Amino acid sequence: MKKIKVRDDEPKLFKKNWKFCVGTGRLGLALQKEYLDHLKLVQEKIGFQYIRGHGLLSDDVGIYREVEIDGETKPFYNFTYIDRIIDSYLDLGIRPFVELGFMPSALASGDQTVFYWKGNVTPPKDYNKWYDLIVAVVSHFVERYGIEEVLRWPFEVWNEPNLVNFWKDADKQEYFKLYKVTAAAVKSVHPDIQVGGPAICGGSHEWIVDFLNFCADENVPVDFVSRHAYTSKAPHKKTFEYYYQELEAPEDMLQQFKTVRELIDQSPFPHLPFHITEYNTSYSPINPVHDTVLNAAYIARILSEGGDYVDSFSYWTFSDVFEEMDVPKAQFHGGFGLVALNSIPKPTFYLFTFFNALGNERLYRDEEIIVTRREDGSIAMVAWNLVMEKGNDFTKDLEIEIPIPFEDVFVKRQTVDEDNGNPWAVWKQMGRPRFPNKKAVETLRQVAQPKVTTCRMRTENNILRLQVRLTKNEVTLIEVEPVKDETYTYVGLDDSFITSYS
Amino acid sequence: MKKIKVRDDEPKLFKKNWKFCVGTGRLGLALQKEYLDHLKLVQEKIGFQYIRGHGLLSDDVGIYREVEIDGETKPFYNFTYIDRIIDSYLDLGIRPFVELGFMPSALASGDQTVFYWKGNVTPPKDYNKWYDLIVAVVSHFVERYGIEEVLRWPFEVWNEPNLVNFWKDADKQEYFKLYKVTAAAVKSVHPDIQVGGPAICGGSHEWIVDFLNFCADENVPVDFVSRHAYTSKAPHKKTFEYYYQELEAPEDMLQQFKTVRELIDQSPFPHLPFHITEYNTSYSPINPVHDTVLNAAYIARILSEGGDYVDSFSYWTFSDVFEEMDVPKAQFHGGFGLVALNSIPKPTFYLFTFFNALGNERLYRDEEIIVTRREDGSIAMVAWNLVMEKGNDFTKDLEIEIPIPFEDVFVKRQTVDEDNGNPWAVWKQMGRPRFPNKKAVETLRQVAQPKVTTCRMRTENNILRLQVRLTKNEVTLIEVEPVKDETYTYVGLDDSFITSYS
Amino acid sequence: MKKIKVRDDEPKLFKKNWKFCVGTGRLGLALQKEYLDHLKLVQEKIGFQYIRGHGLLSDDVGIYREVEIDGETKPFYNFTYIDRIIDSYLDLGIRPFVELGFMPSALASGDQTVFYWKGNVTPPKDYNKWYDLIVAVVSHFVERYGIEEVLRWPFEVWNEPNLVNFWKDADKQEYFKLYKVTAAAVKSVHPDIQVGGPAICGGSHEWIVDFLNFCADENVPVDFVSRHAYTSKAPHKKTFEYYYQELEAPEDMLQQFKTVRELIDQSPFPHLPFHITEYNTSYSPINPVHDTVLNAAYIARILSEGGDYVDSFSYWTFSDVFEEMDVPKAQFHGGFGLVALNSIPKPTFYLFTFFNALGNERLYRDEEIIVTRREDGSIAMVAWNLVMEKGNDFTKDLEIEIPIPFEDVFVKRQTVDEDNGNPWAVWKQMGRPRFPNKKAVETLRQVAQPKVTTCRMRTENNILRLQVRLTKNEVTLIEVEPVKDETYTYVGLDDSFITSYS
Amino acid sequence: MKKIKVRDDEPKLFKKNWKFCVGTGRLGLALQKEYLDHLKLVQEKIGFQYIRGHGLLSDDVGIYREVEIDGETKPFYNFTYIDRIIDSYLDLGIRPFVELGFMPSALASGDQTVFYWKGNVTPPKDYNKWYDLIVAVVSHFVERYGIEEVLRWPFEVWNEPNLVNFWKDADKQEYFKLYKVTAAAVKSVHPDIQVGGPAICGGSHEWIVDFLNFCADENVPVDFVSRHAYTSKAPHKKTFEYYYQELEAPEDMLQQFKTVRELIDQSPFPHLPFHITEYNTSYSPINPVHDTVLNAAYIARILSEGGDYVDSFSYWTFSDVFEEMDVPKAQFHGGFGLVALNSIPKPTFYLFTFFNALGNERLYRDEEIIVTRREDGSIAMVAWNLVMEKGNDFTKDLEIEIPIPFEDVFVKRQTVDEDNGNPWAVWKQMGRPRFPNKKAVETLRQVAQPKVTTCRMRTENNILRLQVRLTKNEVTLIEVEPVKDETYTYVGLDDSFITSYS
Repeated sequence: MKKIKVRDDEPKLFKKNWKFCVGTGRLGLALQKEYLDHLKLVQEKIGFQYIRGHGLLSDDVGIYREVEIDGETKPFYNFTYIDRIIDSYLDLGIRPFVELGFMPSALASGDQTVFYWKGNVTPPKDYNKWYDLIVAVVSHFVERYGIEEVLRWPFEVWNEPNLVNFWKDADKQEYFKLYKVTAAAVKSVHPDIQVGGPAICGGSHEWIVDFLNFCADENVPVDFVSRHAYTSKAPHKKTFEYYYQELEAPEDMLQQFKTVRELIDQSPFPHLPFHITEYNTSYSPINPVHDTVLNAAYIARILSEGGDYVDSFSYWTFSDVFEEMDVPKAQFHGGFGLVALNSIPKPTFYLFTFFNALGNERLYRDEEIIVTRREDGSIAMVAWNLVMEKGNDFTKDLEIEIPIPFEDVFVKRQTVDEDNGNPWAVWKQMGRPRFPNKKAVETLRQVAQPKVTTCRMRTENNILRLQVRLTKNEVTLIEVEPVKDETYTYVGLDDSFITSYS
Repeated sequence: MKKIKVRDDEPKLFKKNWKFCVGTGRLGLALQKEYLDHLKLVQEKIGFQYIRGHGLLSDDVGIYREVEIDGETKPFYNFTYIDRIIDSYLDLGIRPFVELGFMPSALASGDQTVFYWKGNVTPPKDYNKWYDLIVAVVSHFVERYGIEEVLRWPFEVWNEPNLVNFWKDADKQEYFKLYKVTAAAVKSVHPDIQVGGPAICGGSHEWIVDFLNFCADENVPVDFVSRHAYTSKAPHKKTFEYYYQELEAPEDMLQQFKTVRELIDQSPFPHLPFHITEYNTSYSPINPVHDTVLNAAYIARILSEGGDYVDSFSYWTFSDVFEEMDVPKAQFHGGFGLVALNSIPKPTFYLFTFFNALGNERLYRDEEIIVTRREDGSIAMVAWNLVMEKGNDFTKDLEIEIPIPFEDVFVKRQTVDEDNGNPWAVWKQMGRPRFPNKKAVETLRQVAQPKVTTCRMRTENNILRLQVRLTKNEVTLIEVEPVKDETYTYVGLDDSFITSYS
Repeated sequence: MKKIKVRDDEPKLFKKNWKFCVGTGRLGLALQKEYLDHLKLVQEKIGFQYIRGHGLLSDDVGIYREVEIDGETKPFYNFTYIDRIIDSYLDLGIRPFVELGFMPSALASGDQTVFYWKGNVTPPKDYNKWYDLIVAVVSHFVERYGIEEVLRWPFEVWNEPNLVNFWKDADKQEYFKLYKVTAAAVKSVHPDIQVGGPAICGGSHEWIVDFLNFCADENVPVDFVSRHAYTSKAPHKKTFEYYYQELEAPEDMLQQFKTVRELIDQSPFPHLPFHITEYNTSYSPINPVHDTVLNAAYIARILSEGGDYVDSFSYWTFSDVFEEMDVPKAQFHGGFGLVALNSIPKPTFYLFTFFNALGNERLYRDEEIIVTRREDGSIAMVAWNLVMEKGNDFTKDLEIEIPIPFEDVFVKRQTVDEDNGNPWAVWKQMGRPRFPNKKAVETLRQVAQPKVTTCRMRTENNILRLQVRLTKNEVTLIEVEPVKDETYTYVGLDDSFITSYS
Repeated sequence: MKKIKVRDDEPKLFKKNWKFCVGTGRLGLALQKEYLDHLKLVQEKIGFQYIRGHGLLSDDVGIYREVEIDGETKPFYNFTYIDRIIDSYLDLGIRPFVELGFMPSALASGDQTVFYWKGNVTPPKDYNKWYDLIVAVVSHFVERYGIEEVLRWPFEVWNEPNLVNFWKDADKQEYFKLYKVTAAAVKSVHPDIQVGGPAICGGSHEWIVDFLNFCADENVPVDFVSRHAYTSKAPHKKTFEYYYQELEAPEDMLQQFKTVRELIDQSPFPHLPFHITEYNTSYSPINPVHDTVLNAAYIARILSEGGDYVDSFSYWTFSDVFEEMDVPKAQFHGGFGLVALNSIPKPTFYLFTFFNALGNERLYRDEEIIVTRREDGSIAMVAWNLVMEKGNDFTKDLEIEIPIPFEDVFVKRQTVDEDNGNPWAVWKQMGRPRFPNKKAVETLRQVAQPKVTTCRMRTENNILRLQVRLTKNEVTLIEVEPVKDETYTYVGLDDSFITSYS
């Protein structure tokens, strides 16, 4: 039994930087109905501000083509699809966090591609044409959406250029060149549009340092720094359908955030915002950890503390409508999504809704709980019991004392754990149907809901004492609200007159 | 531990006569959005075929007025509202079970009214004008909806004429006169339109007998017999806001069904259909029993067995949008509705959805369980544990053996009891807010859901052995479906490679 | 041919005070689905800020009841319906302009009622209980919606107390008493909540003067002045179904606005806002003028100039869902509504959408046209040809010269006149079906649309010359936008290669 | 002035075979929201029974993959996307007319592809694997949707194998082999599932003959014959963005229908159904003729007479969401669709809605008009004025005499011509914006509506005389319905009391 005494005299600001941005499969998928259904659900229940994904300039979005006119090759810009995509985003109350990449085939210097959907990852064959393309795209955005709107969109140059599969040879100098040309193009449309990079994956700290020094040395504009963070190790098993990986502890990810923040602090641009433009446990879209309650329990601490170090961190991704490793092959397949196929929310989806219920005043926090006060004086807390070991016997008991200026309170608790809010587990009971029929989908939607329990409690001397038992990998939201009891206003009320009630 | 052995070699037909019709507050309320929202929900999840309510001819629907033209008083028929109402019904896939009443003020012989909304319950001052009115209404229905459609609508004459508050002096001869004139008017439009009565309340058996003899003697057309059934006794407490009543056992209601069926069998019209056009536990719309799980457990047996005796029985009513005892005064107020205000389903709503999941083949039934087989071979059963005593200690255990030709089954159980699917109880914890805010409504909607549990089981020698524990007044649906296990098709699957899983 | 030279060098502010508020049938009707469908349509296409109607305190909304407890009569406040109503308003983006009236039966000193729906128009029998009622209602609003929200709602005391049918004996002193008690009650909840009156009908100027003097003399709070304005004379024919009246010219209404504004300027409260809380041509809800294009042409000038004199003017009403003269008896029946039954917009509906398209910069205005510039530099104008005489020969031709800094413009014109956007006329062709079937409704919705014509024009020396022919009672919106011609970007385009095109 | 005398004494059946099926872009596009929005619109207003498109087996739908397990290559079937697609179809009330093709890359014998989206058109490298694939797909359909449902789906083998770009070398013997294997696979799932071919393009009559002889000789099952029909000639201009072609007269297409029907009649299978599984004017998706009113006027006669010869003919295609020639490059771009991008209906869309309003009894027909009677006795006719020459002066006048047993009729006419219902023309006025903003889209939607005019007419001796003037390429629907005049029921009605009315 761990005892926690919450104090309410020195609240700290709880920064909801986890809510700033969320990741998405390649932009071309945003044309799909199922994708938009999932995004609508996510926006209704969570409400991210920005969305970031690959493939803006890839062939399927169709922006860049070349046409021969009178023997001359000319660029041809087609915004049919990207307009439809961004219209959809704005209609759903979310803005693009623009990633400028990958390379249109017609502009590519080579054939190297990444993913099932073949994003070309080679440098432009002609930097002038690339510059023109960026100017055309950004100008079109300004024309269609207005400069006020576009000034709110960050533009990030490329994705993970420090990996050979995302940028030919992971050539740092070539990336700097790309960055410089791109930033100039963006700024040529309007000097206040924000541009940044280097969007690297993982721990290559020298990329951060070199990048900022390069910008300083060459007087290249940079408005923010970005990188990614995953805590899975190399796959220890890898098959046609699955990657299995071990995970580092969540502290490891927080340490990554912190380290890079310090690098920036010591750089020529110490005040730059720092965005984690991707994070998750595993970096593989076919790692079943993403479907589990373990994933929710793991991410909990990141949501709780990540905002201390970074200006945003963007969960990769909101939906299993995703094609990096081919068309999804089953209802559950280890996809990144908060929402699984057929609009079934996963445990991590509810983790985000739980954090969404927290207030801005942080009263208490440790590595397994965060307690906040909301504007209306009510209390909301999220607790979790991350267990990265096999076995069943990991129950944890907390006793929490909270000062609260009400006599009677209504306590509502929502829980996701192995037995509740766990559609993956029920799907396994069903025999893992790859393409479940409507009835099975209906059941999975039902069991995806968190368990809700409620009770009425009394405080003593303005202190509420809560006993909270957490099962293995449980994530729980507890809300405490004052009761304004109106029972006395019912004329002649007496439940004991109802058969079988007292 | 009660042991039940289900046999599957002699299935009986399970007649879903409970699904034929449902009751509604006065028709004028069908103009309201909240009413239609509730009806939509009910139709989506249950899907009744007919809907019956009072007040078709009452002033607020506006059908009958009189106008003086050149010194002469003439009838004026206005179908603006009734068209809108019936259009809404048909759009929602439900047909009217038409109740012809009450009396338009302009046609009434007296001032006596019933209910807060003042339905006039006196005979027509001029039976010729009444005849004309009925002809006008039925003809208008035929013109607007087509005769094919209207031939499917039963027309019932008046409501509970055996009670003094519903028919002046409960004058039987006057009712017979009304019936005769009305039936003639209906048949004048088309001889195959169905007309019936006497729509009496409760146990006045001589009304049934006299009515049928009257029809036989006077050669008056009659296509069905109707009456109502409630099992509450006279109020033992009655206040501004609440009626409290004791209940007879459910057997009492079934006996009522049976007795009247026998009376009809012995009448001059032994083959007439028999409709219970209203039933519920209590006949009062401010009796809190309607909000409880007790009510669901009570009604369960009626749904299970009622169809043995009657051609339909119509739960009174689908929604708490209802005004007989004034505008509803609180979120929960003892209303008849399956759905409470703010679209919150009550336990009895889910009872109906549970019965809706049953198959047509009845394999086993006793006073607390019904087991059926569905067309696809799966098994669905509803069990309940009605306890009409105070106290908490009424757990019941069943062991059910079911023959089932599958080795692996997926078992899904949905439960409503005091602790689950019981928004009334949570509302009491909240301090019974009369007009809950949006947040409280959201919580009530969440806790109104049944608890869902699932598991995977194996049969032995094609026998499934289920252990079912029922808490006090629990109502539970259990569905058993074969598993087509696809686990073996996943290439390289091994959950034990996931951190913390085995 | 009238020639108009528009100048763009001294734009005036075009105040859209006509958009501030709209009238509604009694609040109880706001529970109805059809009502809300119409309001949704109106808000989507026009977007009023406030809505004002009678009957907040009338019995059908159910707020005030009395209950006897232990031999004592106590007030009982029920907010079930009013919460639902105001929730609906706010969901549709419109706020209540609260009218405090009429008298609950239980609180009334007499039996006198107004309208089919029997609004009680007698003073309270107990002013203390009235005070308590107002405090209860306003406090409840604050509790449910927050004080920030309620501070934006004006509270008007009663309706047309200067008419004997709206206030017993049109007793001015009694009204002042009512006002004083009510204002005190409102201010007791929060001193900044706005309260006003006297909500009089028509030209009783001494009521305005006396009211303001009374407030000054007795130190009674007053935050705004209100009255109504109609320009119909006494009925020259009046039948069961119709009122027919002659109309004063529109100038008459504008003069009414102006006169009262001057009275306020000269009063002890010269800076008070002045709201016309009702206006229309006829004050009768069964005057067919409301269904005509004449009505639109008439109201046009009021929308154009009314904002010069008053802070708001509220068209009475947005919908034919209305019951003052009984349930509507036919598809078209002379109702006040912008929208007729079955969601069919009337000509005046489109007049409002036309004015809604105008910019804030007024470049030109006379008694039959208003020309504006919008934020994006485009031009929008509304012209009308009000003809209050019988006969067909009233075509009017305008030539309008507009300075406009573009070479190529796209001109879009929308027209409502006797032959276009006139569902009333088509309904007459159909034989005036009282209760049209779905097919007829579909046709009426189609023909309710304005006629749209478009063309491409060139300016000369930055002057656009428009020829505009107006038919009798036509109302027309003309929008002029610059063309950004992209034709040249199509590679190989040549329409003459299409069969039959050049 | 052409005079037409309609007789009503010998009505013929008007077969709506044009309504049986409609074409679609490749099935993978059915995942897109815009696609489904268009299909919803089409189904609401027209209501086709079947939909047919390419690409079921192409890589993007993802059905066929291969996986290496223990050194062995095995097929892997993934139905994630196709289930979603067919679920969407059935939800919208349309069934698949299944086209079995193109070749999955993993199963292809070569690299040859067709279209921007690279459909592989080579034979299978292994016919056994192809057989297994077809069995797997059809079996999966049966498992998911039930055999009753799948028995209603025709399965057509491949697309246009007589063209070298759709089938390697247009190798007839290879196609017959493919057909034989495929038909066997389909029938192995259930012998009553319908299978057919050869789905050829255009006039290769010997393919039809040879195909049927092959089936007869080799005892290969065949349940229907299919081919395509276009009436455009080879492009006379062809650019990056446009194909321009001349058109044969509509008679040419009808003759094609007839000729093949006769071939079948004379074949070993004289009673086989014959489906035109694609038809349109031009076979190019970038031919602007599809956007014009000419196209509607052209297709009119096909809809009127095509059903005389063929069991169905399927307009190619319902929507401009289509990618055969790359992502659409502009709002209007010559796409096949009935609906243009941004949900803007084209003239041909309305042609279909006009034909949809026709009755089943054909009273009169010639090459420019069809007159029908509907079940309720009303008359509906479509007339058109196809002009395949340049110039403006092609007005045509008809006088039509129709026997009609009513005295008063309401006549409603809907028209699409160069000046009405022609969004393409307005878009040209706007300067052909490639990616119109929301305001422009709104205008285009408005102007896409047909012009509606109405009037009231009297018959003479039960003969109605209509004068109909048709402008160049006008398509018009005229509906004549009896008037049930209720004007006399309005008490005290007199329009002349309304200011300015008579």
